[in-house]
Amino acid sequence: MNFDVEVKISLKKGMLNPEASTIEKALALLNYEVSNTQTIDIIKFTIDATNEDEAYKEVDEMCQKLLCNPVIHDYEITISEE
Amino acid sequence: MNFDVEVKISLKKGMLNPEASTIEKALALLNYEVSNTQTIDIIKFTIDATNEDEAYKEVDEMCQKLLCNPVIHDYEITISEE
Repeated sequence: MNFDVEVKISLKKGMLNPEASTIEKALALLNYEVSNTQTIDIIKFTIDATNEDEAYKEVDEMCQKLLCNPVIHDYEITISEE
Repeated sequence: MNFDVEVKISLKKGMLNPEASTIEKALALLNYEVSNTQTIDIIKFTIDATNEDEAYKEVDEMCQKLLCNPVIHDYEITISEE
């Protein structure tokens, strides 16, 4: 069975986010005042698995091994049947 | 008034996505077969504006000038009152 997967990766609370502060400074140079800037990455893909639990287990392994750094990132997995 | 803003940035259909293909190849090296990989960036921030339309207009300008490259990116703006 094919499943559509969405992995949402964000930095843990309290972690410095250089990308976000760079965006905030660049916007300020263009005279746009913004605050509380955060960046979130989403990775979407299709995976073939026997069932949804199997798919979730595999995607969680992918997150632990490659897609995220569990020390600094929080991640959220959303799986839906194709 | 303060508004919470979310800008969702993705590559236009047909654009090459080196980040996605790198992820797909790296996952294959770890024996995970995935397909149709896409990456989406989300930027969230707070902005002060007189009303929602004003906020939307300003954020759209930010997208055009800095946050996205309108030639290769599609972007979606979501605004909600804080």
